[in-house]
Amino acid sequence: MSASLIVFDLVGTFVFALSGATAGAKHRLDLFGILVLAFAAGNAGGLIRDVLLGATPPPGISDWRYIGVSLLAALVTFRWAPVVDRLRAPVLLLDAAGLSLFAVSGALKAHAAGLNPAAVMLLGVLTGVGGGMLRDVLVSEVPAVLRGELYASAALAGTAVVVAAQLLEIPTPAGAIAGAVLCFALRYLAIRRGWRLPFPREHSPRANGS
Amino acid sequence: MSASLIVFDLVGTFVFALSGATAGAKHRLDLFGILVLAFAAGNAGGLIRDVLLGATPPPGISDWRYIGVSLLAALVTFRWAPVVDRLRAPVLLLDAAGLSLFAVSGALKAHAAGLNPAAVMLLGVLTGVGGGMLRDVLVSEVPAVLRGELYASAALAGTAVVVAAQLLEIPTPAGAIAGAVLCFALRYLAIRRGWRLPFPREHSPRANGS
Amino acid sequence: MSASLIVFDLVGTFVFALSGATAGAKHRLDLFGILVLAFAAGNAGGLIRDVLLGATPPPGISDWRYIGVSLLAALVTFRWAPVVDRLRAPVLLLDAAGLSLFAVSGALKAHAAGLNPAAVMLLGVLTGVGGGMLRDVLVSEVPAVLRGELYASAALAGTAVVVAAQLLEIPTPAGAIAGAVLCFALRYLAIRRGWRLPFPREHSPRANGS
Repeated sequence: MSASLIVFDLVGTFVFALSGATAGAKHRLDLFGILVLAFAAGNAGGLIRDVLLGATPPPGISDWRYIGVSLLAALVTFRWAPVVDRLRAPVLLLDAAGLSLFAVSGALKAHAAGLNPAAVMLLGVLTGVGGGMLRDVLVSEVPAVLRGELYASAALAGTAVVVAAQLLEIPTPAGAIAGAVLCFALRYLAIRRGWRLPFPREHSPRANGS
Repeated sequence: MSASLIVFDLVGTFVFALSGATAGAKHRLDLFGILVLAFAAGNAGGLIRDVLLGATPPPGISDWRYIGVSLLAALVTFRWAPVVDRLRAPVLLLDAAGLSLFAVSGALKAHAAGLNPAAVMLLGVLTGVGGGMLRDVLVSEVPAVLRGELYASAALAGTAVVVAAQLLEIPTPAGAIAGAVLCFALRYLAIRRGWRLPFPREHSPRANGS
Repeated sequence: MSASLIVFDLVGTFVFALSGATAGAKHRLDLFGILVLAFAAGNAGGLIRDVLLGATPPPGISDWRYIGVSLLAALVTFRWAPVVDRLRAPVLLLDAAGLSLFAVSGALKAHAAGLNPAAVMLLGVLTGVGGGMLRDVLVSEVPAVLRGELYASAALAGTAVVVAAQLLEIPTPAGAIAGAVLCFALRYLAIRRGWRLPFPREHSPRANGS
């Protein structure tokens, strides 16, 4: 990876780790719990992708900087949880940037491993949303990404651009930038306008208990 | 894998994906959430098995058809959830067929990787029930297979037949068919007659609150 | 691994599997559910470590004795759950011993794979606490290790000794023993004196709902 990409990747990991640490603080976890949630939210998506690709040991483990920024996010949240909470708006924007970058870089890694377009999109989205899903499972909640705003779909659109660029033989950097910009724009608009994905028809209109 | 085996495998993936999508619809997840649950339920068992065997990237990722049938199951459930719900009885039978096939094919893969009989049975059962377990964990429920009817035990019996056939040097196809038939028969009888596994003695007879 | 190390490892697996089986019995799971929780609690930490290191198939699968002691723990708990429950104090001590051994052996494996000190500590702690975390996720609880007493931190201290010994070129066995003893001592004192890790400041002093 080029130096600038690594910087982006570390910033994305830091922001995702902040979201994990904040969830841990909300659930009254102790310092270690906050650290685990920070690491999980920041790195699980990439780790699962790398394990599925057979690229072991994954950089999330073997490059100490990923562990370092996760630890930093945990300590910052532990010490200044109320401040982190108040910065929610800028953190949401950074989170959208992290999502865009993770989805596109995940898709590029899967493409480089020779996978088909459907798998490239799948692993791109998984890289983007996997960390947040594990974070929520660890605090015993249904992952927000499964029932929330337009989030994973923004990642999916971004990876689709990457795939289309490859098929049309557009140079990789151009496709990657276009995909990341589209993902970020969709996510930004979703935040501003409250866009949501459609829900299924009522499962059973009368007896909706269970 | 032979062509007919792949057809069976894709049908099993589709049926398991239906169960995931239905669980997602019941929990009021959005379209993406339903898709994730469909993919997880249909493919997680095989993916975990392949990762443990070091067979990466696993076919569940690298063969687009597995992603395709999962997507199809999600869309069908999204559009016709009430219909899928009404077809519960035939879906249960297809599910029993999927379980039989996944357990046997998982055991055969583990055997081909040179694992011992205990591991062959373990990975066979994991292939059969892993998807359903991840589906339930993602909607924050204790996996049904851990507390339900006779389900995993049917898979275990089927894999035991596969192992016994290997030890007795019975031809692989014969052992595989016998194992799948036994698994399906046990599961069918369990559905019809409400067979359940035994539960442990009362943990603490008076204070059973928890 | 030397013969004595394997004996320790199997004892650790057995004790962790007991904790899984006991959790399963408490949640009224059936025999299969108890077996799954026993296997998960006893082996998941090592399995995740091995998958991340690319050491597949992992010994937890390929060596039948790990499956065997997990099965034994499940059957013992199934038959004598009240007795296992009454033996809580000695089991806690054995659990502390298991934690020490798993953390140190996990760290040594990660070091042997050429990982950096931060990753060595991470994988050591993960080996020690991963099984318990999966056990709790499977019964839909927030992992005890994330909100409990000083537990993972004892493992972290032990792995730090292993790393320090490597950096100072102290012979591996000496470092390993020192790390395990420190981990055990910290955990023992934490049990006796109720030591806990610090919690974050109140997240939002007034509106502490959610």
